Amino acid sequence: MISQEMLKLGTSKSVIRELAGFGAQRAAIVGAENVLDFSLGNPSVPAPKEVQDAIVDIIKNYEPKVYHSYSSGAGHDGCRTAIAENLNKRYGTNYSKDNFIMTCGAAASLNITIKALVAEPGDEIMVLAPFFPEYTVFIAAQGGKQVLVPCKDDMQLNVEGIKEALTPKTRGIIVNSPNNPSGVVYTKEEMQELCDLLVEKEKEYGHPIYIIADEPYRELVLIDGLEVPFIPNMYKNTVVCYSWSKSLSLPGERIGYVLVPNNVDDEQLIAACGGAARALGFVCAPTLFQLVIERCVNVEPDLTVYKKNRDLLYDGLTKLGYNVAKPAGAFYLFIESPDGDSEKFSEKAKEYDMLVVPGTGFGSKAHMRLSYCVETEKCEKSLEVFEKLMKKYK
Amino acid sequence: MISQEMLKLGTSKSVIRELAGFGAQRAAIVGAENVLDFSLGNPSVPAPKEVQDAIVDIIKNYEPKVYHSYSSGAGHDGCRTAIAENLNKRYGTNYSKDNFIMTCGAAASLNITIKALVAEPGDEIMVLAPFFPEYTVFIAAQGGKQVLVPCKDDMQLNVEGIKEALTPKTRGIIVNSPNNPSGVVYTKEEMQELCDLLVEKEKEYGHPIYIIADEPYRELVLIDGLEVPFIPNMYKNTVVCYSWSKSLSLPGERIGYVLVPNNVDDEQLIAACGGAARALGFVCAPTLFQLVIERCVNVEPDLTVYKKNRDLLYDGLTKLGYNVAKPAGAFYLFIESPDGDSEKFSEKAKEYDMLVVPGTGFGSKAHMRLSYCVETEKCEKSLEVFEKLMKKYK
Repeated sequence: MISQEMLKLGTSKSVIRELAGFGAQRAAIVGAENVLDFSLGNPSVPAPKEVQDAIVDIIKNYEPKVYHSYSSGAGHDGCRTAIAENLNKRYGTNYSKDNFIMTCGAAASLNITIKALVAEPGDEIMVLAPFFPEYTVFIAAQGGKQVLVPCKDDMQLNVEGIKEALTPKTRGIIVNSPNNPSGVVYTKEEMQELCDLLVEKEKEYGHPIYIIADEPYRELVLIDGLEVPFIPNMYKNTVVCYSWSKSLSLPGERIGYVLVPNNVDDEQLIAACGGAARALGFVCAPTLFQLVIERCVNVEPDLTVYKKNRDLLYDGLTKLGYNVAKPAGAFYLFIESPDGDSEKFSEKAKEYDMLVVPGTGFGSKAHMRLSYCVETEKCEKSLEVFEKLMKKYK
Repeated sequence: MISQEMLKLGTSKSVIRELAGFGAQRAAIVGAENVLDFSLGNPSVPAPKEVQDAIVDIIKNYEPKVYHSYSSGAGHDGCRTAIAENLNKRYGTNYSKDNFIMTCGAAASLNITIKALVAEPGDEIMVLAPFFPEYTVFIAAQGGKQVLVPCKDDMQLNVEGIKEALTPKTRGIIVNSPNNPSGVVYTKEEMQELCDLLVEKEKEYGHPIYIIADEPYRELVLIDGLEVPFIPNMYKNTVVCYSWSKSLSLPGERIGYVLVPNNVDDEQLIAACGGAARALGFVCAPTLFQLVIERCVNVEPDLTVYKKNRDLLYDGLTKLGYNVAKPAGAFYLFIESPDGDSEKFSEKAKEYDMLVVPGTGFGSKAHMRLSYCVETEKCEKSLEVFEKLMKKYK
């Protein structure tokens, strides 16, 4: 007599959780330092000192009512204004606090946006594979229908495939760049092609198609000089879903935003997002961390370790003969298994106490995801294991 | 082309928000100290010193990864164990961490529970009026059908009315005691009657009917020696939705839990709640505050001001001839307007810069809600206004 759908979600086997369990078992036997665990997306770079300083400073200098009381549903004015100013400076935009709703992280932002966009059951949200598997859960929970379009072999946008899959029921398309799980940054040229296609299709259908830009990795760009296109500047009907989980290493604190620019076609979309936040029970984003963000919005993440790990692994793996999507951001590599079966590869890797996640859940059985948000030493050690494994395949 | 339902929720007039706007306008003219604002449920007692000490201590003594990383979906083991031990000591229960899912506050807990219980669209969730108006929003968003049953004139349980409204589709009944907006604590005798009725109906229907105990005010009991019945000890099919918003004055931090005892009929209900939390995008409860709760779970709120305000207002108002539901907990009074029209009364009160919320949205147009989580001086001043207003009605 309970929801079988929710039960299934609550009891479904999680490959990542099972790997974590195996890793914990092995760590108890061989020591944590000898388990090469590349399964999780928990940032290894600690939250910057500015965050700790801000928390202590707020607590020492203000009354608890100032930082622990409810904020408005959209969030504290000061925090939203600081975010608007940060983006305006970086991208030449003209946002104000009124373009933002503070949220409990990117998962909240995505659910809110999808719930606001799905006008009727069966309205379509497009997802580009490989993709973050929880998209499937969120879209279903908010009454949408997921339409999956695989990327090209290099994990870049497949604009032709997207064109074929668009229908008059497409409400939005989730664009996640830098991408989880591939680490790929979609190029400006291909993004432009996508935007042109969408403008054309909007005209054809007579209604907007939104890009839902899922951007928790926006600041994690690991190639010097590489620019991640700021999508609202390329395409007006864009909603940005952001989180500080990765850029400030605050994944547990659940703090992010939804940004809806003024010039989107549905001028009441941000109000509908506010309604969706209310309907889902979010009330407001955690208030102490809203004040922390106001003070730390200009702090840049230290990417030294991620860059080092990326270079080391990408160079090492390609030298060993692995086919790896060219990583430019986030802290993931998407590696093709030599025989196209990542599940088998992941099992074999476990024999060497190395944990990589099969890509099946991310939309590609051939690839596995390696999260290199770990100590560099473990990356070095892993190359020896990858070498041994490659020999087995030859 | 967006969700009209969400747009309506996002743009609907909020009486409380409008009162707040009026209050801010008046404060700019006559000074905040002269606006008698009884409209909000933001605790006036600051979060206890133990909370601030815990935050600073955690930050000074641990690495950011310890407190800012993701927890499991259910929450940190230590936090859940501490809560289980606290309840076991107070209520003689035998809970473990596995009975708890940490959540982003009571609104999250309620949405999660309702989503897990609604097996089919149209499954019914019963709500007892007067009630917290967001219940209506949450039930609709999770696909349920709200069935409203008014309480008796004294705002106590109307077991006869509940009996008539139960159907084979009733999945749950929300019990909120101490009650928002009435401040009433349902008596043990009436709760027992309700539980007996539900056991009888469960037999008749052949399936469980859950009590969803919404308990953010559990610790706010203002009459010495009065016991709020712990519902899971009276009725096995109970799910408790808790929050520290009021007891530790942390409304902005979004921290609470769902408790599902082992002996509920659907032994997989807690797994379904975990699935619902995932589907709604909650990921995990804010992690720093999970560690704070672990350390502060035994801290008791300072109720001195609330007790003083309650006594002063209840005595004063009844002496003036107002009909007031007997308040025993929370920080609300539910006052009958002399002519049965709380909307008119609220308008008249504004002429004296006094803000009380008409009860229409809470399920009773005759009554208004007064939140006395304010300075005692304002309560004293308000009695003069109530006296003047009563004279107008005579």
